[in-house]
Order: sequence, then C-alpha cells, then structure tokens
Amino acid sequence: MINIGILGYGTVGSGVVEVLNTNQESINKRANEEINIKYVLDLRDFPGDPIQNKIVHDFDKIIKDEEIKIIVEVMGGVEPAYTFVKNALLAGKSVCTSNKELVAKHGCELLQIAREKNINFLFEASVGGGIPIIRPLNSSLTADEIDEITGILNGTTNYILSKMAHEGLDFDTVLKDAQDKGFAERHPEADIEGYDACRKIAILSSLAFGNQVDYEDIYTEGITKITAEDIKYANQMGRAIKLLASSKRVGDSFYAMVAPFMISSEHPLFSVNNVFNGIFAHGNVLGDVMFYGSGAGKLPTASAVVADVVDAAKHLNRNIMQLWSNKKLELADIRSSKTRFFVRVSGNENVQLNVIEGIFGKVEVVKVSDLKDEFGFVTEIMTEADYQVKAEKCEGIINRIRIED
Amino acid sequence: MINIGILGYGTVGSGVVEVLNTNQESINKRANEEINIKYVLDLRDFPGDPIQNKIVHDFDKIIKDEEIKIIVEVMGGVEPAYTFVKNALLAGKSVCTSNKELVAKHGCELLQIAREKNINFLFEASVGGGIPIIRPLNSSLTADEIDEITGILNGTTNYILSKMAHEGLDFDTVLKDAQDKGFAERHPEADIEGYDACRKIAILSSLAFGNQVDYEDIYTEGITKITAEDIKYANQMGRAIKLLASSKRVGDSFYAMVAPFMISSEHPLFSVNNVFNGIFAHGNVLGDVMFYGSGAGKLPTASAVVADVVDAAKHLNRNIMQLWSNKKLELADIRSSKTRFFVRVSGNENVQLNVIEGIFGKVEVVKVSDLKDEFGFVTEIMTEADYQVKAEKCEGIINRIRIED
Repeated sequence: MINIGILGYGTVGSGVVEVLNTNQESINKRANEEINIKYVLDLRDFPGDPIQNKIVHDFDKIIKDEEIKIIVEVMGGVEPAYTFVKNALLAGKSVCTSNKELVAKHGCELLQIAREKNINFLFEASVGGGIPIIRPLNSSLTADEIDEITGILNGTTNYILSKMAHEGLDFDTVLKDAQDKGFAERHPEADIEGYDACRKIAILSSLAFGNQVDYEDIYTEGITKITAEDIKYANQMGRAIKLLASSKRVGDSFYAMVAPFMISSEHPLFSVNNVFNGIFAHGNVLGDVMFYGSGAGKLPTASAVVADVVDAAKHLNRNIMQLWSNKKLELADIRSSKTRFFVRVSGNENVQLNVIEGIFGKVEVVKVSDLKDEFGFVTEIMTEADYQVKAEKCEGIINRIRIED
Repeated sequence: MINIGILGYGTVGSGVVEVLNTNQESINKRANEEINIKYVLDLRDFPGDPIQNKIVHDFDKIIKDEEIKIIVEVMGGVEPAYTFVKNALLAGKSVCTSNKELVAKHGCELLQIAREKNINFLFEASVGGGIPIIRPLNSSLTADEIDEITGILNGTTNYILSKMAHEGLDFDTVLKDAQDKGFAERHPEADIEGYDACRKIAILSSLAFGNQVDYEDIYTEGITKITAEDIKYANQMGRAIKLLASSKRVGDSFYAMVAPFMISSEHPLFSVNNVFNGIFAHGNVLGDVMFYGSGAGKLPTASAVVADVVDAAKHLNRNIMQLWSNKKLELADIRSSKTRFFVRVSGNENVQLNVIEGIFGKVEVVKVSDLKDEFGFVTEIMTEADYQVKAEKCEGIINRIRIED
C-alpha cells in the first residue's frame, strides 16, 4: 500500500479523490500497489463528506508521517504551495502537482531536488489539463530536436474566440456569457490577458529546449482587443483567430510569444474549438505532431494528476524526469521576430491603397461586404520592428493581428 | 556506451541510422549514455555506405555478442523477425521494433518474456509512425478506463480518400497516382483492404483493454468500394469519409471494426488529411483526447524507434511496459453493433420514399444535384443485423456507408 496526502480539496483535489475512487481497481493494478488517501489538507472541514476523517489543517502532520510517500499538490498559486512542495521533496516524498504558477516559477529547482533525492516531481496536469504532453516531451520526443512548440493552452479564451466566431458576438457579450456559465472567472485577467497561457508555454519551452525560460520574458498579448469585426475578416479569409502560445527556434535564436493569431484551415490547431486545448510540436526528424483534449475541468485535470501518482508509485526510488537546466534561455528580442500582419484600416481601399503600398510594399486587400468605410490588408513577411515603423506612418489603423500559416 | 544492433537496413533501418547520427548529441544526453551502432544485419552489402563495415549477414554474430544490449528490429513481417526477436529477448537483450505484424501476432508473448528477463520489448513505431501513442497508453492514460479508441491508422488510404474528396477523382485514378508517387505500394491490398489498420487497432485495443485482441477476429472492410459519387454525398452532408479502425466498450461488450465511415466536421479526426494519421481515445474520466502526426515515412517512424532505444537505454534492467494478458478478449458479434447508415439507392426519392420508410422507418433524404436517377438516405440507429435484413428487402441499393458522429 502506498499512502498519499492531498494538499487542497477544491475542484481539482476533489476530482483526484473521485478519480481514485471511480477507477480504484485498474489504477491499483497499473501502480502495482494499492493507492490509499491518508490525508487531505484543507483549511475547511467537510462534515458529511466521505473524506471528512482524512481532513487535516496542519501540513506538518503530513510531512512528518513516514508512511506518506507521495504528496499531491492541487492548491494553486505560488505560496504556500512552494514551501510545502519543497519541504515535501526535501523530506523524500514525491510530489505530483497541477500548479502551473509553481512549475513555471520554481520547476527547475524542484526537479533538481527530486533528482538529488532520487524521487519525483511530476506536473503533467500543469499544462493542457488532461492532455498528455509533459510525459511525451520527457520520454517520447527524445529522438528529436524540437524546433517549435505552439499551443492553444487556455480553454477560457478559446471558448470566447470560438463563440465569437460561430455566433458573431462581440468580446464583452461572450465574456459575460462565459462568466455566467462558469467557463470564465469573475476576475478573468489571467485568462484573457494571456498570463495563464504564458506560464504554460514557459513550462513547455523549458522542457523542450532544456534551459530555463522565464515567463516574465515572454511577450504576452491577450484577446481583449479582438472584435466581432476582426472575426468577420478572419472568416472571409477562411481563417480562425486563436490565442497561440508559441516558442520557436530560428537558427540559434529562440522566440516565445503569446498573442492572437489568424491561422489557416490547414493548421493542425484550426479545428481546436471551444474549451478544448491543442498542442502542436515540430521535431527535426519527427515532423509535425499534435495533441488534443480537455485542457481544463475537474475530471480531465484530475486524470492527469492521478496518472502522475501512478507513475510516482511505480518509481518510488527512481527519478524519471529530464531536468531543464537552471541556465537561463535568452529569448531573442521579439522585435526581430518575423511574421505577416493582417491590418484593418478605416477609409476606402481604392483611395488609400497606393499610400499603403508605398509604406508596406505589396499587400493583399481583404474586404468584408457589410463593413463599410474600412478595409483590411495582409502584409508580406516582416519583422515586428519593421511593422512598428511602417504602422506609425500609416493613418487610420484600427487593429492588427499576426498571421500564422 | 551502449551497443546496439539493427536488424534490416531498408527504409526504416537507414532512417534509424540517420536519426542517431543527426541528433547524436541530444540523444546521448537523454539516454545518459553514448548509443553506438555496432552491427547492421542485412542480406545485402552496402559498399561506400558509412555503415558498410558494420554490416553482418549472420544474426548469430549479434546475439552472441555480450556487448549488444539493445536490438532494433526493422525488417517487417512475422518471420524471421519473430525468431530473431524472441531469441534476442531470451538472451537478455531489449528489443525495439516498428513491426506491426510481429506485435499484433506475438506482442503478448514477447512482452511476457521481456518482463521475465527484466528487460524491455518496445514498439512505439508499430502504430501511428512517429505519433506517440503506445507510450501514452502505457504510462499516461493510466488513471482512466479507456472505453473507445478510434484511429485513422493508415496513411495510404487516408491520402487516397483525401485526394478523392478534394479533387473529385475516382478510386482507381487516385490509387494509380499514389502508386506513381510512392505513397502506395504496387501490391496495395494490405492498405486498401484495411489489413494494415486492422493489425494496428488490434495492438492498441490489446493495450487499452489489457487482454489479447486477435486481429483475425476484427471485422475489416477496405475502401475499394468507395466512389467519387459517395464522396459527393459526404460533401453535401458536410462530412468526410475516413477509414476508421475502432474499438469500443459498450457495457460489458467490446466491439472492434475497420471500415470506411462518414464522420462529421465536429469529430476530432475530421481534419486529419492526406498521409497524416490521427488517434482518438475516450477515457471515463479524461474525456476526449487525440494524437495527430505523421503515421509513416522514413524519419518519423525512425524517430519513434530511436525514442524507444533511448527509453530502453535508460531502463536496461527494469521492465517498463504494462502487459496485456494472454487471455483472449472475446469481441462481440459485429451484427449486434449499432450505428446509423448512409444508403445510396437508384431511382427517384419522390417515388420510393414511402417504400423505403416502410422498410427502414424514418429516414433523412440526401440529394446531390448532379447525380440524377439516384438519391441517398440516412437511417436511424440500428444494429448491423437489422440493417442487413432491411437492406435485403430494399431494391436498388448502390452502396452503404456507416456514420460516426
């Protein structure tokens, strides 16, 4: 029997208990051991709940119990999660977490402690919810040099953009609807400003490239400026607007960015809609690969946490995660990153095209029939810096969205 | 240093050599050891090739060499691969293979030998080429009861169906084009009759359900009867025709089938086009998950084989694969499997609809404007047996295709 302690009995924590109960038999068989929940740490009591007798309020009780071999951290946030997890690892207990803030900020150090102690720090659920992506990066894509990893990593924003696209609604209306349905939080900034996706792509990039990518270094732009009109242009172009979190190796430089992109119908992420997530990777020998599934939600996230518990149970005294080194990966300045831009301008294309092409060079005009007094155009490939300079010379720009093919 | 021997220097074998050379540094780092190719077994010599001095013609030389820890089997076919692999495992050498025929027929026994010897028999490349699917099934989806696994597992047929759909061409024309381009073999039966997909879904089902699924038991229907006209109906319905290889748990029964299906644009496999493969799975807590990538090709397949070599190198004396038991999974009779059917009939819908609905119950008529003197209809959900009985009463049926939503 392997005893575990769960830190936090919120959505994911109660999901972990539910998954362990629901699939008890097959999980124990795969772990080669009975997994037993001995403690659940929470500030609250849960009278009447089947786990009420396992509730403890003091972390010390868990960490001092020699019988506890694995700790599940599903509290979220950096503190006190960091202190708890670090002390757990130092005490020789493996940790499985769904906490992206923790992993993005302290993953490298916590992996190092786990390696020194010959135990495990696992975090499959911290990116992409139930989608297996951390373990495949760690143990499947090992023959490749990964040169790109691009994901739709935030279900809330993908739901909002999908609903805007399918129903022609504007951002505020859909956000309110998402909040009413519980798909978006009352304070939605972490999602809609791209901060959540930013932490997740920092974790994936650190693993894929082997060095520390600081999320603070990643250029991050949310979806709050995307309008119903932008989406009409995207539809007209046969494209979808998606919030992409992306890292790329270009020669010896690494770029990372979170921003809305217009992607073509040929892109593997094009049909990732609603609250689903998708993660695309390109390896130098493998070519394209994509992973798709539920990026959030109680049970899918708990499924990934419990899969980590099974793995930790099978490897109680054997470290299995690749490290990413604490050497900082210096990201190239985003201003040298190259892309095509879709630009919306007020006015009339017949009158203004000459001036615009004088500034931007050859462009491709896009016209949406029911949008009067404005038009769009697509530039050639240029750097962000070039675009900035040209955009400042160009009058009447309403919005610009990057294009990914 | 870990010495390996490669059995077969054909497409995949030369790919394995190329991948090991191209990404030597990062592969050795991930394996924590230098991987050294000591022998390549082939009947031919390769004068001038960098591996010419490693070529041997006698398997005994490899199996008797104590320095060889890992054997890569990329010859294909059941014999002599089975004899070589079994003897290699019995001699305490781990084996990595891309050979689906071998794994479908003898996987259970070979996994058992590897477990007894505390070494590994790995076969990531046997299904889905470069797509990580075997390892995720083995070590990521461990918190779930898998109740469905459905894949587009054959790149040749997917290329043919995609090209028929996009260019309106008929089967024979596209097959010939695919043969000319090297996407289809001169003797294409294994692909177009579904035998290749059948072996692959047998492997995935055995792993997902934990018991032996014999590929001979799986109802298998190829794509040779799909016509350009069928595809016009599919387009009209906003659907795609895909060769699906599928296993489902329905209550206590298991169904497995390979057949062309019309799938909706909402299905995660809808946009898996051309030579790409996609594998969809549903877990009881995870929900939907899908894996997408290059299902064949020299380098993607070799990437998966080399990832197995890295894993075998990291686990030289530790067995890591879940077994599937040698207990045979009794598949339910396909005649009790339920689905909706799309049916094409010659004649006129206004004249015949009453008779058809008299036989089939309520149907949904589909009409393609440039197909005169025929029409299509979609039935309600019914068993295969029911459909057979009804179809025999119905005159003028041209073709029928199952529908998957």
